[in-house]
Amino acid sequence: MQRYFSNKKIDDKLILSDDDIYHITTVMRMKDNDEIIVVYDKIAYLCCIENVKEKLKIKIKKQLEKVDYKTPNITLIIPILKEQKMDLILQKATELGVSEIIPINTNRSIIRLKDGKDIKKYERWRRIVKEASEQSHRIDIPNIYDIKNIEELDKLNGLKIICSTREKTKNIKNIMKKNQKCDRINLVIGPEGGLTEEEEEHLNKMGFISTSLGSRIMRVETVPMFVLSIINYEFME
Amino acid sequence: MQRYFSNKKIDDKLILSDDDIYHITTVMRMKDNDEIIVVYDKIAYLCCIENVKEKLKIKIKKQLEKVDYKTPNITLIIPILKEQKMDLILQKATELGVSEIIPINTNRSIIRLKDGKDIKKYERWRRIVKEASEQSHRIDIPNIYDIKNIEELDKLNGLKIICSTREKTKNIKNIMKKNQKCDRINLVIGPEGGLTEEEEEHLNKMGFISTSLGSRIMRVETVPMFVLSIINYEFME
Repeated sequence: MQRYFSNKKIDDKLILSDDDIYHITTVMRMKDNDEIIVVYDKIAYLCCIENVKEKLKIKIKKQLEKVDYKTPNITLIIPILKEQKMDLILQKATELGVSEIIPINTNRSIIRLKDGKDIKKYERWRRIVKEASEQSHRIDIPNIYDIKNIEELDKLNGLKIICSTREKTKNIKNIMKKNQKCDRINLVIGPEGGLTEEEEEHLNKMGFISTSLGSRIMRVETVPMFVLSIINYEFME
Repeated sequence: MQRYFSNKKIDDKLILSDDDIYHITTVMRMKDNDEIIVVYDKIAYLCCIENVKEKLKIKIKKQLEKVDYKTPNITLIIPILKEQKMDLILQKATELGVSEIIPINTNRSIIRLKDGKDIKKYERWRRIVKEASEQSHRIDIPNIYDIKNIEELDKLNGLKIICSTREKTKNIKNIMKKNQKCDRINLVIGPEGGLTEEEEEHLNKMGFISTSLGSRIMRVETVPMFVLSIINYEFME
Protein backbone atom coordinates (compact mmCIF):
# COMPACT_ATOMS: atom_id res chain seq x y z
CA MET A 1 0.00 0.00 0.00
CA GLN A 2 1.24 3.51 -0.83
CA ARG A 3 2.70 5.46 2.09
CA TYR A 4 3.03 9.18 2.65
CA PHE A 5 4.20 11.53 5.39
CA SER A 6 1.99 14.29 6.71
CA ASN A 7 2.89 17.36 8.76
CA LYS A 8 -0.61 18.41 9.67
CA LYS A 9 -3.65 16.80 11.25
CA ILE A 10 -7.07 18.38 11.62
CA ASP A 11 -9.51 16.22 13.61
CA ASP A 12 -9.62 12.88 11.76
CA LYS A 13 -8.12 14.29 8.55
CA LEU A 14 -4.46 14.35 7.55
CA ILE A 15 -3.08 17.00 5.22
CA LEU A 16 -0.59 16.05 2.49
CA SER A 17 1.77 18.15 0.40
CA ASP A 18 0.81 19.19 -3.12
CA ASP A 19 3.41 16.75 -4.52
CA ASP A 20 1.82 13.85 -2.67
CA ILE A 21 -1.67 14.87 -3.75
CA TYR A 22 -0.45 14.98 -7.36
CA HIS A 23 1.06 11.51 -6.85
CA ILE A 24 -2.21 10.09 -5.49
CA THR A 25 -4.52 11.62 -8.06
CA THR A 26 -2.44 11.79 -11.23
CA VAL A 27 0.36 9.21 -10.92
CA MET A 28 -1.49 6.51 -8.97
CA ARG A 29 -4.93 7.53 -10.29
CA MET A 30 -6.59 6.54 -7.04
CA LYS A 31 -10.32 6.61 -6.51
CA ASP A 32 -12.58 7.50 -3.59
CA ASN A 33 -12.35 4.96 -0.76
CA ASP A 34 -8.90 3.69 -1.88
CA GLU A 35 -6.66 3.08 1.11
CA ILE A 36 -3.24 4.54 1.83
CA ILE A 37 -0.99 4.70 4.87
CA VAL A 38 -0.07 8.11 6.18
CA VAL A 39 2.51 8.74 8.88
CA TYR A 40 1.97 11.73 11.13
CA ASP A 41 4.08 12.54 14.19
CA LYS A 42 5.79 9.08 14.11
CA ILE A 43 2.48 7.22 14.05
CA ALA A 44 1.27 5.34 10.98
CA TYR A 45 -2.45 5.51 10.14
CA LEU A 46 -4.49 3.48 7.73
CA CYS A 47 -6.47 6.09 5.81
CA CYS A 48 -8.98 6.24 3.01
CA ILE A 49 -9.17 8.94 0.44
CA GLU A 50 -12.29 10.95 -0.27
CA ASN A 51 -13.39 13.57 -2.71
CA VAL A 52 -10.62 12.82 -5.24
CA LYS A 53 -12.24 14.85 -8.01
CA GLU A 54 -12.48 18.11 -6.08
CA LYS A 55 -10.45 18.73 -2.92
CA LEU A 56 -8.83 15.48 -1.85
CA LYS A 57 -9.38 14.50 1.78
CA ILE A 58 -7.41 11.88 3.73
CA LYS A 59 -9.55 10.37 6.46
CA ILE A 60 -8.03 8.30 9.25
CA LYS A 61 -9.54 4.83 9.60
CA LYS A 62 -7.27 3.46 12.31
CA GLN A 63 -3.89 3.77 13.93
CA LEU A 64 -1.39 1.04 12.97
CA GLU A 65 0.87 -0.85 15.32
CA LYS A 66 4.40 0.44 15.82
CA VAL A 67 7.32 -1.69 14.60
CA ASP A 68 10.16 -1.86 17.10
CA TYR A 69 13.54 -1.92 15.34
CA LYS A 70 15.70 -2.33 18.50
CA THR A 71 18.55 -0.35 16.95
CA PRO A 72 20.07 2.64 18.72
CA ASN A 73 19.88 6.18 17.40
CA ILE A 74 22.48 6.36 14.62
CA THR A 75 24.11 9.54 13.36
CA LEU A 76 26.00 9.17 10.09
CA ILE A 77 28.74 11.73 9.55
CA ILE A 78 29.92 11.82 5.93
CA PRO A 79 31.92 14.04 3.58
CA ILE A 80 30.01 15.34 0.58
CA LEU A 81 30.63 12.95 -2.29
CA LYS A 82 29.78 13.04 -5.96
CA GLU A 83 26.05 13.09 -6.60
CA GLN A 84 25.54 9.42 -7.50
CA LYS A 85 27.45 8.12 -4.47
CA MET A 86 25.82 10.61 -2.13
CA ASP A 87 22.34 9.67 -3.39
CA LEU A 88 23.08 5.97 -2.91
CA ILE A 89 24.35 6.50 0.63
CA LEU A 90 21.36 8.63 1.61
CA GLN A 91 18.90 6.08 0.23
CA LYS A 92 20.57 3.02 1.74
CA ALA A 93 21.34 4.68 5.09
CA THR A 94 17.65 5.57 5.37
CA GLU A 95 16.61 1.98 4.60
CA LEU A 96 19.07 0.75 7.20
CA GLY A 97 17.71 3.00 9.92
CA VAL A 98 19.94 6.03 10.28
CA SER A 99 18.39 8.83 12.38
CA GLU A 100 20.57 11.78 11.48
CA ILE A 101 23.01 12.66 8.75
CA ILE A 102 25.72 15.26 9.22
CA PRO A 103 27.59 16.22 6.04
CA ILE A 104 31.12 17.42 6.81
CA ASN A 105 33.94 19.24 5.09
CA THR A 106 37.17 17.23 5.12
CA ASN A 107 40.57 18.04 3.65
CA ARG A 108 40.35 15.37 0.98
CA SER A 109 36.69 15.97 0.05
CA ILE A 110 36.35 16.57 -3.66
CA ILE A 111 33.19 18.59 -3.13
CA ARG A 112 33.06 21.22 -0.41
CA LEU A 113 30.32 23.64 0.47
CA LYS A 114 31.39 26.90 2.00
CA ASP A 115 28.20 28.49 3.14
CA GLY A 116 27.09 25.46 5.07
CA LYS A 117 24.21 25.03 2.68
CA ASP A 118 23.48 24.58 -0.98
CA ILE A 119 19.71 24.83 -1.19
CA LYS A 120 19.34 22.70 -4.33
CA LYS A 121 21.55 19.93 -2.97
CA TYR A 122 19.65 19.89 0.31
CA GLU A 123 16.30 19.79 -1.44
CA ARG A 124 17.50 16.81 -3.47
CA TRP A 125 18.88 15.03 -0.38
CA ARG A 126 15.68 15.64 1.61
CA ARG A 127 13.60 14.24 -1.23
CA ILE A 128 15.76 11.10 -1.36
CA VAL A 129 15.52 10.39 2.37
CA LYS A 130 11.78 11.12 2.38
CA GLU A 131 11.12 8.70 -0.48
CA ALA A 132 13.38 6.06 1.05
CA SER A 133 11.53 6.48 4.36
CA GLU A 134 8.20 5.91 2.64
CA GLN A 135 9.51 2.89 0.75
CA SER A 136 11.03 1.28 3.81
CA HIS A 137 7.91 2.01 5.90
CA ARG A 138 9.69 4.20 8.41
CA ILE A 139 7.69 6.39 10.73
CA ASP A 140 10.32 9.12 10.70
CA ILE A 141 12.52 10.79 8.11
CA PRO A 142 16.26 11.11 8.84
CA ASN A 143 17.25 14.65 9.69
CA ILE A 144 19.97 16.12 7.44
CA TYR A 145 21.99 18.77 9.24
CA ASP A 146 23.72 21.78 7.72
CA ILE A 147 27.27 21.03 6.71
CA LYS A 148 29.77 21.12 9.57
CA ASN A 149 33.52 21.20 10.03
CA ILE A 150 35.21 18.47 12.03
CA GLU A 151 35.78 20.84 14.97
CA GLU A 152 32.02 21.21 15.35
CA LEU A 153 31.49 17.51 16.13
CA ASP A 154 32.46 17.95 19.77
CA LYS A 155 28.94 18.05 21.16
CA LEU A 156 27.82 14.57 20.14
CA ASN A 157 26.90 12.04 22.82
CA GLY A 158 27.06 8.25 22.78
CA LEU A 159 29.44 5.81 21.15
CA LYS A 160 31.66 7.57 18.59
CA ILE A 161 33.28 5.54 15.83
CA ILE A 162 35.61 6.45 12.96
CA CYS A 163 35.63 3.98 10.07
CA SER A 164 39.38 4.26 9.69
CA THR A 165 41.69 3.05 6.95
CA ARG A 166 44.62 3.64 9.29
CA GLU A 167 43.64 1.56 12.35
CA LYS A 168 44.96 -2.00 12.24
CA THR A 169 44.25 -3.51 15.67
CA LYS A 170 40.84 -2.42 17.02
CA ASN A 171 38.11 -3.63 14.67
CA ILE A 172 34.39 -2.83 14.52
CA LYS A 173 33.54 -6.18 16.10
CA ASN A 174 35.66 -5.48 19.21
CA ILE A 175 33.95 -2.10 19.60
CA MET A 176 30.42 -3.40 19.06
CA LYS A 177 30.87 -6.26 21.52
CA LYS A 178 32.03 -3.83 24.19
CA ASN A 179 29.07 -1.49 23.63
CA GLN A 180 26.09 -3.76 23.36
CA LYS A 181 23.87 -1.55 25.43
CA CYS A 182 24.59 1.82 23.87
CA ASP A 183 21.56 3.75 22.71
CA ARG A 184 23.34 6.24 20.48
CA ILE A 185 26.05 5.65 17.87
CA ASN A 186 27.90 8.28 15.82
CA LEU A 187 29.73 7.02 12.75
CA VAL A 188 32.34 9.03 10.86
CA ILE A 189 33.06 7.90 7.29
CA GLY A 190 36.12 9.37 5.55
CA PRO A 191 36.29 10.66 1.96
CA GLU A 192 38.02 8.82 -0.89
CA GLY A 193 41.64 8.69 0.22
CA GLY A 194 40.57 8.72 3.88
CA LEU A 195 40.71 11.32 6.62
CA THR A 196 44.10 12.95 7.14
CA GLU A 197 46.11 11.88 10.17
CA GLU A 198 45.49 15.30 11.66
CA GLU A 199 41.72 15.05 11.20
CA GLU A 200 41.64 11.58 12.72
CA GLU A 201 43.71 12.71 15.72
CA HIS A 202 41.42 15.67 16.19
CA LEU A 203 38.41 13.34 16.24
CA ASN A 204 40.21 10.92 18.60
CA LYS A 205 40.66 13.80 21.04
CA MET A 206 36.90 14.39 20.91
CA GLY A 207 36.32 10.75 21.90
CA PHE A 208 35.92 9.14 18.47
CA ILE A 209 37.43 5.65 18.34
CA SER A 210 39.39 4.73 15.19
CA THR A 211 38.08 1.38 14.03
CA SER A 212 39.09 -1.05 11.31
CA LEU A 213 36.37 -2.68 9.21
CA GLY A 214 38.50 -5.73 8.48
CA SER A 215 40.73 -6.50 5.54
CA ARG A 216 38.38 -5.86 2.64
CA ILE A 217 38.92 -2.78 0.51
CA MET A 218 35.57 -1.08 -0.05
CA ARG A 219 34.52 1.92 -2.06
CA VAL A 220 33.57 4.83 0.14
CA GLU A 221 29.82 4.46 -0.54
CA THR A 222 29.91 0.83 0.55
CA VAL A 223 31.23 1.69 4.00
CA PRO A 224 28.02 3.17 5.50
CA MET A 225 25.96 0.23 4.21
CA PHE A 226 28.49 -2.19 5.69
CA VAL A 227 28.54 -0.59 9.14
CA LEU A 228 24.80 0.05 9.29
CA SER A 229 24.10 -3.59 8.37
CA ILE A 230 26.41 -4.66 11.17
CA ILE A 231 24.68 -2.43 13.71
CA ASN A 232 21.26 -3.80 12.71
CA TYR A 233 22.65 -7.30 13.04
CA GLU A 234 24.28 -6.70 16.39
CA PHE A 235 21.01 -5.38 17.87
CA MET A 236 18.86 -8.12 16.32
CA GLU A 237 17.26 -10.38 18.92
CA MET B 1 48.75 1.40 -7.50
CA GLN B 2 46.84 0.16 -10.56
CA ARG B 3 45.87 -3.51 -10.51
CA TYR B 4 45.14 -5.91 -13.33
CA PHE B 5 44.34 -9.58 -13.76
CA SER B 6 46.39 -11.79 -16.08
CA ASN B 7 45.57 -15.22 -17.48
CA LYS B 8 49.00 -16.04 -18.84
CA LYS B 9 52.54 -16.14 -17.50
CA ILE B 10 55.68 -16.79 -19.54
CA ASP B 11 58.81 -17.04 -17.38
CA ASP B 12 58.96 -13.76 -15.42
CA LYS B 13 56.54 -11.95 -17.74
CA LEU B 14 52.77 -11.65 -17.33
CA ILE B 15 50.49 -11.20 -20.32
CA LEU B 16 47.57 -8.74 -20.15
CA SER B 17 44.47 -8.35 -22.31
CA ASP B 18 44.39 -5.75 -25.07
CA ASP B 19 41.91 -3.70 -23.01
CA ASP B 20 44.30 -3.58 -20.08
CA ILE B 21 47.25 -2.69 -22.32
CA TYR B 22 45.17 0.15 -23.77
CA HIS B 23 44.36 1.26 -20.22
CA ILE B 24 48.04 1.29 -19.20
CA THR B 25 49.40 3.03 -22.27
CA THR B 26 46.60 5.33 -23.36
CA VAL B 27 44.37 6.00 -20.33
CA MET B 28 47.02 5.96 -17.58
CA ARG B 29 49.86 7.05 -19.93
CA MET B 30 52.39 5.01 -17.98
CA LYS B 31 56.10 5.06 -18.75
CA ASP B 32 58.84 2.42 -18.72
CA ASN B 33 59.67 1.28 -15.19
CA ASP B 34 56.31 2.39 -13.76
CA GLU B 35 54.97 -0.17 -11.30
CA ILE B 36 51.64 -1.99 -11.34
CA ILE B 37 50.21 -4.97 -9.50
CA VAL B 38 49.15 -7.94 -11.57
CA VAL B 39 47.24 -10.91 -10.21
CA TYR B 40 47.87 -14.26 -11.84
CA ASP B 41 46.46 -17.56 -10.58
CA LYS B 42 45.34 -16.00 -7.25
CA ILE B 43 48.78 -14.54 -6.52
CA ALA B 44 49.46 -10.80 -6.66
CA TYR B 45 52.78 -9.67 -8.12
CA LEU B 46 54.46 -6.29 -8.02
CA CYS B 47 55.50 -5.72 -11.63
CA CYS B 48 57.20 -3.07 -13.67
CA ILE B 49 56.35 -2.20 -17.23
CA GLU B 50 58.87 -2.18 -20.04
CA ASN B 51 58.96 -1.29 -23.67
CA VAL B 52 55.79 0.86 -23.51
CA LYS B 53 56.35 2.43 -26.92
CA GLU B 54 56.56 -0.83 -28.87
CA LYS B 55 55.32 -4.11 -27.43
CA LEU B 56 54.50 -3.62 -23.75
CA LYS B 57 56.05 -6.12 -21.37
CA ILE B 58 55.04 -6.73 -17.76
CA LYS B 59 57.96 -7.99 -15.73
CA ILE B 60 57.50 -9.55 -12.29
CA LYS B 61 59.54 -7.88 -9.55
CA LYS B 62 58.24 -9.81 -6.56
CA GLN B 63 55.35 -11.82 -5.22
CA LEU B 64 53.12 -9.97 -2.73
CA GLU B 65 51.81 -11.33 0.54
CA LYS B 66 48.36 -12.91 0.55
CA VAL B 67 45.56 -11.20 2.53
CA ASP B 68 43.47 -13.65 4.54
CA TYR B 69 39.81 -12.61 4.62
CA LYS B 70 38.61 -15.41 6.96
CA THR B 71 35.20 -15.49 5.25
CA PRO B 72 33.75 -18.74 3.89
CA ASN B 73 33.11 -19.36 0.23
CA ILE B 74 29.89 -17.45 -0.56
CA THR B 75 27.55 -18.22 -3.45
CA LEU B 76 24.99 -15.51 -4.17
CA ILE B 77 21.85 -16.74 -5.92
CA ILE B 78 19.82 -13.88 -7.37
CA PRO B 79 17.00 -13.28 -9.84
CA ILE B 80 17.88 -11.10 -12.80
CA LEU B 81 16.93 -7.55 -11.92
CA LYS B 82 16.82 -4.34 -13.91
CA GLU B 83 20.23 -3.27 -15.17
CA GLN B 84 21.03 -0.60 -12.58
CA LYS B 85 20.13 -2.80 -9.61
CA MET B 86 21.92 -5.80 -11.05
CA ASP B 87 25.08 -3.75 -11.69
CA LEU B 88 25.02 -2.41 -8.14
CA ILE B 89 24.61 -5.88 -6.65
CA LEU B 90 27.41 -7.35 -8.76
CA GLN B 91 29.79 -4.54 -7.83
CA LYS B 92 29.01 -4.53 -4.11
CA ALA B 93 28.86 -8.32 -3.79
CA THR B 94 32.34 -8.48 -5.34
CA GLU B 95 33.66 -5.88 -2.90
CA LEU B 96 32.13 -7.82 -0.03
CA GLY B 97 33.78 -11.07 -1.03
CA VAL B 98 31.28 -13.21 -2.90
CA SER B 99 32.89 -16.18 -4.71
CA GLU B 100 30.16 -17.23 -7.11
CA ILE B 101 27.01 -15.69 -8.50
CA ILE B 102 24.15 -17.80 -9.84
CA PRO B 103 21.43 -15.83 -11.64
CA ILE B 104 18.06 -17.60 -11.43
CA ASN B 105 14.68 -17.46 -13.07
CA THR B 106 11.89 -16.94 -10.54
CA ASN B 107 8.15 -16.61 -11.05
CA ARG B 108 8.09 -12.95 -10.07
CA SER B 109 11.27 -11.92 -11.92
CA ILE B 110 10.57 -9.03 -14.24
CA ILE B 111 13.46 -10.03 -16.49
CA ARG B 112 13.84 -13.67 -17.50
CA LEU B 113 16.35 -15.23 -19.84
CA LYS B 114 15.23 -18.32 -21.63
CA ASP B 115 18.33 -19.62 -23.30
CA GLY B 116 20.34 -19.60 -20.10
CA LYS B 117 22.55 -16.92 -21.54
CA ASP B 118 22.42 -13.48 -23.00
CA ILE B 119 25.92 -12.85 -24.28
CA LYS B 120 25.81 -9.06 -23.99
CA LYS B 121 24.43 -9.15 -20.44
CA TYR B 122 27.06 -11.66 -19.38
CA GLU B 123 29.87 -9.62 -20.94
CA ARG B 124 28.65 -6.59 -19.02
CA TRP B 125 28.34 -8.52 -15.75
CA ARG B 126 31.81 -10.06 -16.16
CA ARG B 127 33.31 -6.63 -16.79
CA ILE B 128 31.67 -5.25 -13.63
CA VAL B 129 32.92 -8.04 -11.36
CA LYS B 130 36.41 -7.89 -12.91
CA GLU B 131 36.67 -4.13 -12.34
CA ALA B 132 35.27 -4.43 -8.82
CA SER B 133 37.81 -7.20 -8.10
CA GLU B 134 40.66 -4.95 -9.24
CA GLN B 135 39.37 -2.03 -7.21
CA SER B 136 38.91 -4.05 -4.05
CA HIS B 137 42.31 -5.74 -4.49
CA ARG B 138 40.90 -9.23 -4.75
CA ILE B 139 43.08 -12.03 -6.06
CA ASP B 140 40.16 -13.75 -7.74
CA ILE B 141 37.16 -12.70 -9.81
CA PRO B 142 33.71 -14.02 -8.82
CA ASN B 143 32.47 -16.66 -11.20
CA ILE B 144 29.10 -15.88 -12.80
CA TYR B 145 27.22 -19.03 -13.74
CA ASP B 146 24.76 -19.50 -16.57
CA ILE B 147 21.21 -18.79 -15.51
CA LYS B 148 19.50 -21.63 -13.66
CA ASN B 149 16.03 -22.60 -12.58
CA ILE B 150 15.30 -23.19 -8.89
CA GLU B 151 15.13 -26.96 -9.44
CA GLU B 152 18.77 -26.92 -10.51
CA LEU B 153 20.00 -25.65 -7.14
CA ASP B 154 19.91 -29.12 -5.59
CA LYS B 155 23.62 -29.85 -5.92
CA LEU B 156 24.95 -27.06 -3.69
CA ASN B 157 26.85 -27.94 -0.53
CA GLY B 158 27.26 -26.03 2.72
CA LEU B 159 24.92 -23.75 4.64
CA LYS B 160 21.91 -22.77 2.52
CA ILE B 161 19.97 -19.64 3.38
CA ILE B 162 16.90 -17.99 1.87
CA CYS B 163 16.52 -14.29 2.65
CA SER B 164 12.80 -14.65 3.17
CA THR B 165 10.07 -12.05 3.52
CA ARG B 166 7.77 -14.76 4.85
CA GLU B 167 9.77 -16.17 7.76
CA LYS B 168 9.00 -14.48 11.08
CA THR B 169 10.76 -16.53 13.77
CA LYS B 170 14.19 -17.76 12.60
CA ASN B 171 16.39 -14.76 11.87
CA ILE B 172 19.80 -14.50 10.19
CA LYS B 173 21.48 -14.04 13.56
CA ASN B 174 20.13 -17.33 14.92
CA ILE B 175 21.36 -19.11 11.80
CA MET B 176 24.82 -17.50 11.77
CA LYS B 177 25.40 -18.22 15.46
CA LYS B 178 24.61 -21.89 14.90
CA ASN B 179 26.96 -22.15 11.92
CA GLN B 180 30.08 -20.34 12.98
CA LYS B 181 32.39 -22.90 11.50
CA CYS B 182 30.84 -23.38 8.10
CA ASP B 183 33.17 -22.91 5.15
CA ARG B 184 30.55 -22.51 2.44
CA ILE B 185 27.38 -20.38 2.43
CA ASN B 186 24.72 -20.23 -0.30
CA LEU B 187 22.39 -17.25 -0.19
CA VAL B 188 19.13 -17.02 -2.10
CA ILE B 189 17.71 -13.52 -2.61
CA GLY B 190 14.15 -13.22 -3.90
CA PRO B 191 12.91 -10.84 -6.61
CA GLU B 192 10.81 -7.74 -5.93
CA GLY B 193 7.63 -9.14 -4.40
CA GLY B 194 9.56 -12.10 -3.01
CA LEU B 195 9.73 -15.77 -3.93
CA THR B 196 6.38 -17.52 -4.24
CA GLU B 197 5.35 -19.85 -1.43
CA GLU B 198 5.82 -22.76 -3.82
CA GLU B 199 9.35 -21.69 -4.74
CA GLU B 200 10.30 -21.24 -1.10
CA GLU B 201 8.90 -24.66 -0.18
CA HIS B 202 10.79 -26.22 -3.06
CA LEU B 203 14.02 -24.65 -1.79
CA ASN B 204 13.23 -25.72 1.79
CA LYS B 205 12.99 -29.29 0.57
CA MET B 206 16.48 -28.94 -0.92
CA GLY B 207 17.80 -27.87 2.49
CA PHE B 208 17.57 -24.09 2.19
CA ILE B 209 16.61 -22.44 5.48
CA SER B 210 14.09 -19.59 5.31
CA THR B 211 15.53 -16.71 7.30
CA SER B 212 14.24 -13.31 8.38
CA LEU B 213 16.57 -10.32 8.11
CA GLY B 214 14.78 -8.48 10.92
CA SER B 215 12.01 -5.92 10.79
CA ARG B 216 13.47 -3.43 8.30
CA ILE B 217 11.98 -3.24 4.84
CA MET B 218 14.80 -3.12 2.30
CA ARG B 219 14.88 -2.77 -1.45
CA VAL B 220 15.90 -5.97 -3.16
CA GLU B 221 19.37 -4.66 -4.10
CA THR B 222 20.08 -3.76 -0.46
CA VAL B 223 19.54 -7.33 0.72
CA PRO B 224 22.78 -8.89 -0.65
CA MET B 225 24.87 -6.01 0.75
CA PHE B 226 23.17 -6.42 4.12
CA VAL B 227 23.73 -10.17 4.36
CA LEU B 228 27.27 -10.09 2.94
CA SER B 229 28.23 -7.37 5.44
CA ILE B 230 26.88 -9.55 8.23
CA ILE B 231 28.85 -12.59 7.07
CA ASN B 232 32.06 -10.55 6.92
CA TYR B 233 31.33 -9.27 10.41
CA GLU B 234 30.51 -12.68 11.84
CA PHE B 235 33.81 -14.13 10.58
CA MET B 236 35.88 -11.10 11.67
CA GLU B 237 38.40 -11.97 14.39
